[in-house]
Amino acid sequence: MWAPREVIKLFNVYTPLIEREIKRVLDAQPDLPIYDMLRYFFGFMDEKGNTLTGYGGKRFRPGLCLFIADAYGDRDAALLPAVSIEIFHNFTLIHDDIEDHDELRRGRPTVWKVWGVNHAINAGDAGLILAQSLLPDVIAQYADQGRRAADILTSAYREVIEGQFLDFSLADKELHDAYVSEDHYYEMIHKKAAVLVGVSAEIGGLMSGASPVDTELLRAFGVNLGVAYQIHDDMVSLWGAEAASGKEAHKDIHEKKKTLPILYAYKMTNDQRRNMLQQIFAPEHSVNNEDIAQVIKILEDVGAYAYARQVVEVYAGKVKGAIEQTTLPVEHKKRLVEFTDALLPSLR
Amino acid sequence: MWAPREVIKLFNVYTPLIEREIKRVLDAQPDLPIYDMLRYFFGFMDEKGNTLTGYGGKRFRPGLCLFIADAYGDRDAALLPAVSIEIFHNFTLIHDDIEDHDELRRGRPTVWKVWGVNHAINAGDAGLILAQSLLPDVIAQYADQGRRAADILTSAYREVIEGQFLDFSLADKELHDAYVSEDHYYEMIHKKAAVLVGVSAEIGGLMSGASPVDTELLRAFGVNLGVAYQIHDDMVSLWGAEAASGKEAHKDIHEKKKTLPILYAYKMTNDQRRNMLQQIFAPEHSVNNEDIAQVIKILEDVGAYAYARQVVEVYAGKVKGAIEQTTLPVEHKKRLVEFTDALLPSLR
Repeated sequence: MWAPREVIKLFNVYTPLIEREIKRVLDAQPDLPIYDMLRYFFGFMDEKGNTLTGYGGKRFRPGLCLFIADAYGDRDAALLPAVSIEIFHNFTLIHDDIEDHDELRRGRPTVWKVWGVNHAINAGDAGLILAQSLLPDVIAQYADQGRRAADILTSAYREVIEGQFLDFSLADKELHDAYVSEDHYYEMIHKKAAVLVGVSAEIGGLMSGASPVDTELLRAFGVNLGVAYQIHDDMVSLWGAEAASGKEAHKDIHEKKKTLPILYAYKMTNDQRRNMLQQIFAPEHSVNNEDIAQVIKILEDVGAYAYARQVVEVYAGKVKGAIEQTTLPVEHKKRLVEFTDALLPSLR
Repeated sequence: MWAPREVIKLFNVYTPLIEREIKRVLDAQPDLPIYDMLRYFFGFMDEKGNTLTGYGGKRFRPGLCLFIADAYGDRDAALLPAVSIEIFHNFTLIHDDIEDHDELRRGRPTVWKVWGVNHAINAGDAGLILAQSLLPDVIAQYADQGRRAADILTSAYREVIEGQFLDFSLADKELHDAYVSEDHYYEMIHKKAAVLVGVSAEIGGLMSGASPVDTELLRAFGVNLGVAYQIHDDMVSLWGAEAASGKEAHKDIHEKKKTLPILYAYKMTNDQRRNMLQQIFAPEHSVNNEDIAQVIKILEDVGAYAYARQVVEVYAGKVKGAIEQTTLPVEHKKRLVEFTDALLPSLR
């Protein structure tokens, strides 16, 4: 997940707090190298065990959670759930990197690349157990509120795995398969990416005493932000400048990801080009530079950029609408709106 | 885990109850194929989605849990933890099968073999989440007792993953590496296999009101049973009759597993044969039939069978001692002792 400087500015005040807590959770485990693999992935350590800083990711989800909890007046109660969310998120990335054969993450070799697939599966499993093992503590410390938070997080964690499953279901299928549709794309990104952002905001409100109405709005804010961001991210992969985004150019086309612009182009173009897209995205086909140029040209001719940008703006509108309706202080609303705009810049 | 008919007899009264509850948990999830992959692995379904029975494994751990809970008078309170244990155990097997490249389990293709590694990683993750997601319910329904059970299970789950990690750490190393020792072997099987049997018994007692002393003894009973069983299982792989055990002959030697008899033989034999063992167990070496014959001969000459059998009997003694000291009814004690003997038959 690429993010502009503004994101980091808004949330990085919480990073030391979050990282201290993640370290505390890891340090409470037995002295075994499997936890060093997690420390490595969290950016606390290099692969030789030396202390490291600056490679840990943005802590966007727990930062959002604590920013909102702070806005309602009680940051402390949200800390443990926020840390659970961040540990869970990192577990998904460790298994993701295996599944996608990604060798680099945040500029460093992935866990499977350093220690092999088996250790990476186990290290991810250990991360998932740690993330969920914090929930009984949340229940113990915050009674009914904690119980509610645990239920929300457990459901969200389940949905993320379902989203991961749906992602591969989409990837496995041919472009002309009836299953490959915008509806299934939205279902997939909703579960895989948006729900966890949604509950990050929701839990921030819930734990600091926001009203049920506000809590609901915060979830809508986060879910829509997650959807908008995912589509924007897919667009960056197609049209972003490589240097600015940190993404490998056209990686999604190489991986035959059926993202929204692709699905739109497939629907809108003529039969001959539809055939061409089918062949390029066929499972056995190996994508070359000429294919990339063809796909980009088809996307251009049907106006896929404008379409996807419009969708992003519709979701950004929902995000801002939800923020507006909460009882958050005006200053916090303003900052969240600015943040949303900064997160979703026009690419043209 | 191979088991004699007596095990099935003692616990199979609980199987319908356990399976009904596992099905209930799965049916409460969204209608997605990822849960059918779990149903397949639990033996409720074939790979085409047809209902199936008789392939689900012995439900040994939850059966033991409920047998003990029954003996103390309250079976119901132990059901949810028992189901969590069984779902967790099956999750570990799904990931295990990927890591060991095992293509068959209980006579059927493994999840990764049917649906590929990525879906198998995700299906396992979904299983782990379901197993842990039952713990907040246990806390909600049984207050302090439930909280204690959730803590015990969370720790046990973490230890199983650590044991899995230690198993690969042992497997990765050369036979002459200082790390490869009986101590590390015991640490590994304790975590990987014994702890989950231990908490199955412990939780059965805890949830049905056994005293703290009894609860402690039940854990010792289960842990020692798990250790004895694992060593016995390693012996079956070396000396068992293929037909009776259902195991592929000498699979452990092919996989260069550094089990107790091997470690003992390596320590007790002469330098020339130690060298030979080193070469056979070296990471780059491919084990052939001549190697197998050599290893078996070395094991024979140092008396590795007698040694390992003695260790099994020492642990079986601890198992029976722990049972004896509990306040369990005499009839239940008798059945658990008979069960222990049946589980650990002499192979000669």
